[in-house]
Amino acid sequence: MGYQFSNRIMTLKPSPIRESMKFAVKPGVISFAQGNPSPEAFPMDAIRSIINYLLDSDPAPLLQYGTTEGYAPLRQTLKDRMKNHFQCGREFDELVIVSGAQQAVELAAKSFCNEGDTVLCENPSFIGSINAFRSYNLNLRGIAMEDDGIDISSLERAFQEEKNVKLLYLIPNFQNPLGTVMSLEKRKTVYELAKKYHCMILEDNPYGEIRFQGHEVPNIKSFDEDGLVLYCGSFSKILAAGIRVGFVLAPIPVVQKMVVAKQVSDVHTNLMWQAVADHFLTDYDFEAHLKRLCGIYGRKCRLMVSSLKESAGGLLRFNEPEGGFFLWCRASDQVDMQRFYRGLKENNINIFPGKMLMVTPNGELNSFRLNFSTPSDDDIRLGCEKLGETLKKSLN
Amino acid sequence: MGYQFSNRIMTLKPSPIRESMKFAVKPGVISFAQGNPSPEAFPMDAIRSIINYLLDSDPAPLLQYGTTEGYAPLRQTLKDRMKNHFQCGREFDELVIVSGAQQAVELAAKSFCNEGDTVLCENPSFIGSINAFRSYNLNLRGIAMEDDGIDISSLERAFQEEKNVKLLYLIPNFQNPLGTVMSLEKRKTVYELAKKYHCMILEDNPYGEIRFQGHEVPNIKSFDEDGLVLYCGSFSKILAAGIRVGFVLAPIPVVQKMVVAKQVSDVHTNLMWQAVADHFLTDYDFEAHLKRLCGIYGRKCRLMVSSLKESAGGLLRFNEPEGGFFLWCRASDQVDMQRFYRGLKENNINIFPGKMLMVTPNGELNSFRLNFSTPSDDDIRLGCEKLGETLKKSLN
Repeated sequence: MGYQFSNRIMTLKPSPIRESMKFAVKPGVISFAQGNPSPEAFPMDAIRSIINYLLDSDPAPLLQYGTTEGYAPLRQTLKDRMKNHFQCGREFDELVIVSGAQQAVELAAKSFCNEGDTVLCENPSFIGSINAFRSYNLNLRGIAMEDDGIDISSLERAFQEEKNVKLLYLIPNFQNPLGTVMSLEKRKTVYELAKKYHCMILEDNPYGEIRFQGHEVPNIKSFDEDGLVLYCGSFSKILAAGIRVGFVLAPIPVVQKMVVAKQVSDVHTNLMWQAVADHFLTDYDFEAHLKRLCGIYGRKCRLMVSSLKESAGGLLRFNEPEGGFFLWCRASDQVDMQRFYRGLKENNINIFPGKMLMVTPNGELNSFRLNFSTPSDDDIRLGCEKLGETLKKSLN
Repeated sequence: MGYQFSNRIMTLKPSPIRESMKFAVKPGVISFAQGNPSPEAFPMDAIRSIINYLLDSDPAPLLQYGTTEGYAPLRQTLKDRMKNHFQCGREFDELVIVSGAQQAVELAAKSFCNEGDTVLCENPSFIGSINAFRSYNLNLRGIAMEDDGIDISSLERAFQEEKNVKLLYLIPNFQNPLGTVMSLEKRKTVYELAKKYHCMILEDNPYGEIRFQGHEVPNIKSFDEDGLVLYCGSFSKILAAGIRVGFVLAPIPVVQKMVVAKQVSDVHTNLMWQAVADHFLTDYDFEAHLKRLCGIYGRKCRLMVSSLKESAGGLLRFNEPEGGFFLWCRASDQVDMQRFYRGLKENNINIFPGKMLMVTPNGELNSFRLNFSTPSDDDIRLGCEKLGETLKKSLN
């Protein structure tokens, strides 16, 4: 039978990153395509102890329905942390738990945007969020990027040209896929522009605490005196990804609408893992844990950078990020990209073509994203070596 | 600042059931309002053993990102069970895991319905699903109910009168809130009508296995030769509610769209609890577990029925359900309902007014839903006694 789907879903494609996961497990394949945390980053001993403690205490309430807003102790712990460590959250804000930051993006789109409304995005950006906006039939406008974040004049032009701009979606820290950090000055300018044009900012910060170099830049939320910013945090990169726990810090009226939207979506987030996250934040030395993670990812990043420098020589330009999970590479114009991608496939190397991360399908044909958080150190060395060889064999 | 929300979310209210949970914990309150499983129904020992086993084996993959479709072993176990126990699932069907059956309903609405499209619902029905449809600005038409399920002539009239009818939402087993079971004859007629009018059936079956009396009636999905039926199953009532694990069995093209929609919603469902559910189904005597649950809920149901008969006398009519979690009560016309609700509040008894479960806000002013799965046996006795007294004090 022929099925008649909604307009919004009809043309939506699955995320190529998610899809590639199904094949990355093939033996012999080295994948730089995903953005998974490293298995060595999971605090296994702590997780084991906490779960055993929870199971031995009073586990029944954690198996029961909970409130949509989330597990109260975790909400309080996160509110305190956001306030004390990041100066984020004012009297008019509230914090609620979501099933991963992905859900925060989807709920924000659902709560703010009618069909055809505009969302402004960094371009390229995170495919999961781009697809969340697409799933509501929104008008997506990509804004050009510079080394220190979004291009301000392109952003202002977009505000002037587009109608019904409801959300500005940003990943200010270690942007996915570019790895860039938005400068403090730009953060302030972006905030003022959003205020001027009555647009909400969706500040997505999954990688902010994975900084292995340089200095922290304040979150946009920290100067949100007008209640414009929805801040999304995630446990995927700092505790575990498969648990699906994240949070949103946003003005109370916004949070109230998102809670209603979440209620009809999954009622609430897995309760026991909310409790695990809370105990991990409160009973363990979380800052030491973060330091350990930054050690792991910093090492992997430097290893990839040095391996690529050695193997790809002048054929590849890439950033040397201060944090996050990704390198953004641009191949020299001498490289025949079709031949390059074919060669990688033959060599069992998975990478992520840049054009698939663009809001609109133009540009960045010579670019690709490399992930260093998932592969083992040996795979980083071997994969970069093969990638360099393939580049050299793909010259025009 | 004044926030401008989407049309679909602007007028959506939080579920009064969810909201009432926040107050049910007040000491001294006896709540018949929720629909929680009984804490004694959680198989605590099995859950402890399984989690310990998983933590001692190879837990890292369960903390990593997983595929949106769900944990492969659980999908296979459920497919086999649906096939072997319920004759559900054909070559053209696929099964995917969702974050509770609530998510299946929301994803179905998102995947099939444009704004203004029509969904037909039993009236009254489950408020969580009604709100999920409302959250997409759909035209909801409630269909009258009889003791053996939906009223067929009202249903056919709705098919004839409404435009763009995309979904028919049904809870054939122990309907929430009515407790009714749709007869086999009606299930077949409903299926033929949906086929005739090219409408998908969303068959929600959270209570099907909580049958403590009478004989099982085949699911509508079991005679789905045309690929019309999306079957939603849930672990909330048969394992634990706070884990948020359910599933959908539906034709492959439908499942593919729902997976794309789920990907942008929460990426995937909490992975470790998918594994716990799988081990519980495969390594334990699941049928014996269900028998134990039916024993608990049958006892509570009979206790509520006998307590009400004793306390409320001729002032209350109610069904004696063969399964599920609810009694549906109609107070005699002699009762001043406003005085009754006020009296209940003074007596710290929570119940759920029937009018709040209606698709359109008319009728059923004298009706209310009572839940017997959540309260303790003592609370059922005491609560019913007080309810009867309050009824008697509320006569016109």
